[in-house]
Amino acid sequence: MAWEARAREKLDAINSSIPQNWRLNSPVPSAEEQRDLTGPYICQYLSSEEVEITECHAVYIVKNISCGRWRAEDVARAFCHRAALAHQMVSCLHEIFFDTAIKDAIALDEYFAKTGHPVGPLHGLPVSLKDQFHVKGVDTTMGYVGWIGTFQGKKDTAKHKTYESEMVRELRALGAVLYCKTSVPQTLMSAETMNNIIGYTWNPKNRNLSSGGSSGGEGALISLKGSPIGFGTDYSGSIRMPSAFNGLYGIRPSSGRLPYQGLANSMDGQNTVLSVVGPMSHSPASLRLMIKAILSQKPWLYDPLVVELPWRSDQEGETLRYIAGRTTETKLAFGIMRCDGIVQSHPPIMRALDIVTKVLTAAGHELVDWNPPSHQRAIDIVQACWVYDGGEDVHGSFELSGEPMSDKISWIFGSERREEMKASAIAKNNVAKRAFQKEYMDYWNSTRQRTRSGRPVDAFILPAGAATATRPGARTYAGYTTALSALDYSIVTLPVTTVDKKIDISEGFQPISDHDANVHSGYEPEIYHGGHVGLQLVARRFQEEKVLVIAEYLTDLISAQHSASQSAEA
Amino acid sequence: MAWEARAREKLDAINSSIPQNWRLNSPVPSAEEQRDLTGPYICQYLSSEEVEITECHAVYIVKNISCGRWRAEDVARAFCHRAALAHQMVSCLHEIFFDTAIKDAIALDEYFAKTGHPVGPLHGLPVSLKDQFHVKGVDTTMGYVGWIGTFQGKKDTAKHKTYESEMVRELRALGAVLYCKTSVPQTLMSAETMNNIIGYTWNPKNRNLSSGGSSGGEGALISLKGSPIGFGTDYSGSIRMPSAFNGLYGIRPSSGRLPYQGLANSMDGQNTVLSVVGPMSHSPASLRLMIKAILSQKPWLYDPLVVELPWRSDQEGETLRYIAGRTTETKLAFGIMRCDGIVQSHPPIMRALDIVTKVLTAAGHELVDWNPPSHQRAIDIVQACWVYDGGEDVHGSFELSGEPMSDKISWIFGSERREEMKASAIAKNNVAKRAFQKEYMDYWNSTRQRTRSGRPVDAFILPAGAATATRPGARTYAGYTTALSALDYSIVTLPVTTVDKKIDISEGFQPISDHDANVHSGYEPEIYHGGHVGLQLVARRFQEEKVLVIAEYLTDLISAQHSASQSAEA
Repeated sequence: MAWEARAREKLDAINSSIPQNWRLNSPVPSAEEQRDLTGPYICQYLSSEEVEITECHAVYIVKNISCGRWRAEDVARAFCHRAALAHQMVSCLHEIFFDTAIKDAIALDEYFAKTGHPVGPLHGLPVSLKDQFHVKGVDTTMGYVGWIGTFQGKKDTAKHKTYESEMVRELRALGAVLYCKTSVPQTLMSAETMNNIIGYTWNPKNRNLSSGGSSGGEGALISLKGSPIGFGTDYSGSIRMPSAFNGLYGIRPSSGRLPYQGLANSMDGQNTVLSVVGPMSHSPASLRLMIKAILSQKPWLYDPLVVELPWRSDQEGETLRYIAGRTTETKLAFGIMRCDGIVQSHPPIMRALDIVTKVLTAAGHELVDWNPPSHQRAIDIVQACWVYDGGEDVHGSFELSGEPMSDKISWIFGSERREEMKASAIAKNNVAKRAFQKEYMDYWNSTRQRTRSGRPVDAFILPAGAATATRPGARTYAGYTTALSALDYSIVTLPVTTVDKKIDISEGFQPISDHDANVHSGYEPEIYHGGHVGLQLVARRFQEEKVLVIAEYLTDLISAQHSASQSAEA
Repeated sequence: MAWEARAREKLDAINSSIPQNWRLNSPVPSAEEQRDLTGPYICQYLSSEEVEITECHAVYIVKNISCGRWRAEDVARAFCHRAALAHQMVSCLHEIFFDTAIKDAIALDEYFAKTGHPVGPLHGLPVSLKDQFHVKGVDTTMGYVGWIGTFQGKKDTAKHKTYESEMVRELRALGAVLYCKTSVPQTLMSAETMNNIIGYTWNPKNRNLSSGGSSGGEGALISLKGSPIGFGTDYSGSIRMPSAFNGLYGIRPSSGRLPYQGLANSMDGQNTVLSVVGPMSHSPASLRLMIKAILSQKPWLYDPLVVELPWRSDQEGETLRYIAGRTTETKLAFGIMRCDGIVQSHPPIMRALDIVTKVLTAAGHELVDWNPPSHQRAIDIVQACWVYDGGEDVHGSFELSGEPMSDKISWIFGSERREEMKASAIAKNNVAKRAFQKEYMDYWNSTRQRTRSGRPVDAFILPAGAATATRPGARTYAGYTTALSALDYSIVTLPVTTVDKKIDISEGFQPISDHDANVHSGYEPEIYHGGHVGLQLVARRFQEEKVLVIAEYLTDLISAQHSASQSAEA
């Protein structure tokens, strides 16, 4: 069968798994007519009960089910419905298994009715998964036509539709309800999500823009509240970009914190810079709930790459003590990087940095400029890893079906295989990476000479991209996320504001290079208006507890400031 | 200058740094005349005060200095003297800097006299270092003639004799006294220690045998008590073999526990299986002292590959509770691997396994057979890493001087460069490694079905080699250590007994392969008599605290059993 027919057949199968009564009767209006599909737009198709459930944060969903106020079945049905709507609006799903989910939810309700207590800390929580997770009963295509009906492109009847990724087992044990898998770009190597099966996943908040990639399906689905929490993966920014683009909190933990065991991947075995798995959601508290739950399963006993590192409340406590400090000497200190020296961020992002600077300063914390070793070195190191194998892995996956590679990908891998890198060159890149990490760490340590506390900064803050979201056709720059992948830090992206075409204007822009000028030229206030603006908050390696405490605190500060401005305006 | 002259010049420089009054006046007798140079033999050249100091374990040395009973200077002088003797007996040193050490010790004494307290937890403790550590003022040759007078083979005047490895900085901050660097085999890739500068490092307990490799200089020096504790590194067994061969406790921590930052290495940048750094000493308590001390320096702030994992007393406490358990259900459980299915160990090692089995069983602990996934797969994975670069790195180092490669090395690297491995083949090996680790971990978990406690085994025990020590010229087999490197477990080697030619005889040996028969044929009770017999004790990844508690407990059991047998005989 030609690849087009196979892709069409798969798409039809996905769409036909949406119950008739959840199907939209008329096409979604164009972006010009209806830019924002979140909130009121999607809610028009839901009952008030469904809205109440799906607008709720993950933490409260679990609480409501675990105290018997809500039934897991109702929660599952509500999210299945909203996810079905989301998919019809922005093409964000690869696999739909609502029936299984509802069955699982009923079983949870029965358990609860019988025992009076929840199965685990995620009892009844719907969790969406990027289409790298293997879940029994459904395909994992990762957007490759050639992977349809196979196990990672191979005819492996023992594993196809039966094998489950380690974290899937853990999520089930914790009481989570799995119900869908979300879209990814071909190869996972893009800041936009598109493939020959489902097409393009648009940004639901502003449909002029991309939902990001590679966890773009997650980003769009969670943004539309078709999922309260889901898992993405991040190699060069694939959790952070979709999280920032969609107004979500997303955590890129250090590699070895959460179990990647048994996920499908591109270029598996490239181990200079490892892809990591992490949750994306609507609040830092939801991310904490999820990570604590996963760690309670002792994943280090089931994934050989996970470090034996349970959740550390003492790290949270220490951070909270700094937050509560009475003097600048005992409060938090932050590095602020407004520009990486390569490409300047668009005006809304600079304003987001201003907001963060203002609220942290007002709260008595210390901010210092962040001028670390050149991020260009890190970008070069990470980008070299992308093509160690000369495209062997990804070209092989395209050849399975003969489907074409998008030009959003081919700039990386070329139209055919190239020469593979030799062992000694890979070793050299590994040494360069370690040297960069060491210099960066030394720089971080050196900030103790610039803080009043005499401690190095607790975290640093920088843009999550040059643009608030990738805009199809415009020149892009992903260096703000890519560079940090070489450092393996614990990073949370957090939403700060939305684009306001009236105030986010390009005034006095001075390009620092042609590349910078090109990226800047892609910014048009009218086009970007209303889109989300996120930033990256970065703690050291394996400081997931600390970065989440700070993210939550910073969110409160921003929210208070926002309320204060609104009151002042009113 | 020809390589022979450069090597000779370096050797002369090493030897001439030994003070005249510490030089031996007559040659060391042959192995036939004096097989064992430890204990009384080397002590004949020392004063009773020097013997008292140098026979003391690291923990007590620090205690004696930190309470003011001993002066750091006297301790330094005693160990410098004994190390000088050791080197003259078995060629175990590459760099000698006794003058600096004594100056440093005097400064520590002055600090103590002035403040009344020690500089840190290692105040005044002499620490020897394998010649991969960079220490200011001296070369790092790693046994390469071409590295003499350079920084890792490169003319780098900014770093040569000025740069220090991260752990060197930490050891100094902790109060340690550095005084010598120890010998290694060419390339570090051998179970014997020999190079064209210092020749061959013999086993001081039984000079028919090798001191092992690649931390063979450490093994020999500590065995002769020319050092109370020292650091080796371990890629495929390079801490474990010399520790076992020399009757020492050595720990191979998981990679990322202790800082390797800034050490010289072979094939740097190969990152499928990382070399790790760890201490070797006379007791588990000394290893614990050292690791706790290093971790108190928060090495994760200075080495990007170190995990933020402080010393965990709770892991020790939990292990101690199992040890003290009242029933088999609450006591420890062990896997015992008597043979890896590839090569059987020599009779003294089988007896050591019997001893351990006996004492653990008598103490009420549970033992189960250990039949994990084939170690041959792990050996193949690790050996593939050795030659990823086709010998590029090591041949380059030989070419700097034109010196020849020993035939103990050339079986690995060939006489010239071979084709390098391609990225996709390396990726495949990385995936194979992870799959092996996962299967092994699943096997480990499955032992919960075989223990009475329902918990998986706490640790497993196996030989540290097929032979108690490498014997020059005899067929060797290092698979017992090599295989475990693929698993990155926390491993302690511990001495169990010594070879007794009367009881350790080859009775009823049935070869399982030609290789097995060949290795077995190298065992001659008369030749091996008196040599040390060690075993590996293996805990899971990052369980350094647990494995040390068990090692200490097991040592006490063995020691009690030994005393009981002696009483019975008397």
